[in-house]
Amino acid sequence: MIAAKAYAAPKAHANLEPFKFDRREVGPKDVLIEIAYCGVCHSDIHQVRDEWGHGIFPMVPGHEIVGRITKVGAEVTKFKVGDLAGVGCFVDSCRHCPNCLAGEEQYCDVGMIGTYNGRDKEGNPTYGGYSNQIVVDEQYTLRISEKLPLAGVAPLLCAGITTYSPIMHWKIGKGHKVAVLGLGGLGHMAVKLAVSKGADVTVLSTSPNKKADAEKLGAHHFVVTSDEEQVKSAAGSFDFIINTISAQHEYNFYLQMLKVNGTMILLGVPPESPTLAAFPLIGRRRSIAGSLIGGIAETQEMLDYCAEHNIVSDVEVIPIDYIDTAYDRMIKGDVRYRFVIDMATI
Amino acid sequence: MIAAKAYAAPKAHANLEPFKFDRREVGPKDVLIEIAYCGVCHSDIHQVRDEWGHGIFPMVPGHEIVGRITKVGAEVTKFKVGDLAGVGCFVDSCRHCPNCLAGEEQYCDVGMIGTYNGRDKEGNPTYGGYSNQIVVDEQYTLRISEKLPLAGVAPLLCAGITTYSPIMHWKIGKGHKVAVLGLGGLGHMAVKLAVSKGADVTVLSTSPNKKADAEKLGAHHFVVTSDEEQVKSAAGSFDFIINTISAQHEYNFYLQMLKVNGTMILLGVPPESPTLAAFPLIGRRRSIAGSLIGGIAETQEMLDYCAEHNIVSDVEVIPIDYIDTAYDRMIKGDVRYRFVIDMATI
Repeated sequence: MIAAKAYAAPKAHANLEPFKFDRREVGPKDVLIEIAYCGVCHSDIHQVRDEWGHGIFPMVPGHEIVGRITKVGAEVTKFKVGDLAGVGCFVDSCRHCPNCLAGEEQYCDVGMIGTYNGRDKEGNPTYGGYSNQIVVDEQYTLRISEKLPLAGVAPLLCAGITTYSPIMHWKIGKGHKVAVLGLGGLGHMAVKLAVSKGADVTVLSTSPNKKADAEKLGAHHFVVTSDEEQVKSAAGSFDFIINTISAQHEYNFYLQMLKVNGTMILLGVPPESPTLAAFPLIGRRRSIAGSLIGGIAETQEMLDYCAEHNIVSDVEVIPIDYIDTAYDRMIKGDVRYRFVIDMATI
Repeated sequence: MIAAKAYAAPKAHANLEPFKFDRREVGPKDVLIEIAYCGVCHSDIHQVRDEWGHGIFPMVPGHEIVGRITKVGAEVTKFKVGDLAGVGCFVDSCRHCPNCLAGEEQYCDVGMIGTYNGRDKEGNPTYGGYSNQIVVDEQYTLRISEKLPLAGVAPLLCAGITTYSPIMHWKIGKGHKVAVLGLGGLGHMAVKLAVSKGADVTVLSTSPNKKADAEKLGAHHFVVTSDEEQVKSAAGSFDFIINTISAQHEYNFYLQMLKVNGTMILLGVPPESPTLAAFPLIGRRRSIAGSLIGGIAETQEMLDYCAEHNIVSDVEVIPIDYIDTAYDRMIKGDVRYRFVIDMATI
């Protein structure tokens, strides 16, 4: 077994604290990664606070992992010691269902095995990236370019792929008017990626003071959703709304802003299910859809695309003992746009 | 002016009663149709009872109109006296917006002009098909085959196109597993049309006693949605759910039955907006969409398709003075599957 250091929540709602545990031995198809950075995703907070239920404690969160390979199993072919590598939201899946075979392991019929707060095929809990190292099957490990600043790459493993995958699935790009709803970890990546694909991008926000930021990220337009006139003139104007909000909000209010055949893509889960009026959908043949991260192949494609186009997340690098404060600030929306833990501080 | 006889609701919620009014003169591009049959759509009840608001009274309902041309304007080219003709849910639109130009007048940016309970471009109220004759611009008039029983054709003008249009838009057919939710006027047409397109069709119903009927219509499978075991085995199994229910119901319960990438298409509007849980959409990249009747070109295509494939609505022909009883029976779901008024009885 491999001794690992981490920060863990000993029980639901508890603050995180230092935690020691063993990772499995490096198997023939595994790689061992010395973690350099781990992004802090809003779902870490949800799970540490057991807001989705079935939490496994102690819990080591973290699924936006980048680092360097320090050991490879005998049968590993994709990686060698010294390579940069990444791990996203899952570390295994059934590998046999139609979705796994199609490279969409995130929709595995049996259920993907989460990087943390999951159970591996032996039934052992999985521990995430708030840790100094991790052992992962090479099939579920991503190649990382040496070209980009590594801390900014970490959030691509979740926030990046979560926004990239729907952009690819719905073929969002040139000729499309796209609104991004919510300018946080997901939202700022949605802006960068949609802009890079040639779409005309509008940020929708309740706070006018995000305008300068939105423009800095590359957005072409900004609509203050508390301004009745601006909302009125946005009616029926978007082909897509990429909805990254996980706070409580109304779907119907935003659906009105879609064109005929427009689609709102949900990436966040509000605490209470909003109501859905049928008329705004029927009257303009609009859709509301959801999308979940992306498969391994698509995550690799996204990482390569970001390296090619110099796209990283805007991050605030923090020491690991800052994590509880970071959570508090995230809940207030006080981060531009992703906290990333410098794992040298563990 | 042309004297017309009709049945009208003198005010909201009132029973229908005989009503005399004038149709406009036959203009150069108009046709005059002697109405033979008019289908009775659930939206007639909604509008007579002013459940959607803004009702114009007296109201002559009816937008599933078939009959024979008795007069044509000087510039009419598509029709001659003696031809069968049909009128659906709208009799005009702006003709200039992108949707009108694309032949999707139902999504006209200015707003289509309803066959009844609308206002024409001069601001006069439109009166529908519970009437002995109607004057319509030939551009908004449909050709009807002599081949099919005419009473069964009438409901195609609304129930037929409302189900045909999404089947075409989402390319539903061979290789698809399709559920039809609700076996009424729309639902029975959805079954016939989806079956004719080669889809594997399941009827979802709360009442086991509709099974024989569903099979008679051509459905391949039947799921009783009050049976937990049957619901469990239907989980994740459909590419599409064509949701024709306009009574109160839960979307989330049925969304679980969709495959990855599956779509639920809403055709009916429940009185209260149901809640929409984000997880069932996100976790399987499902969509929920709406669709509204169809454009003139697509309605013609549907009528031609039905003539070619011998598809008509299953109807119960009634005299016009039975209309209030028909409404009561429709609300109880007591009709298989569409009432059609024999306009010779007016």
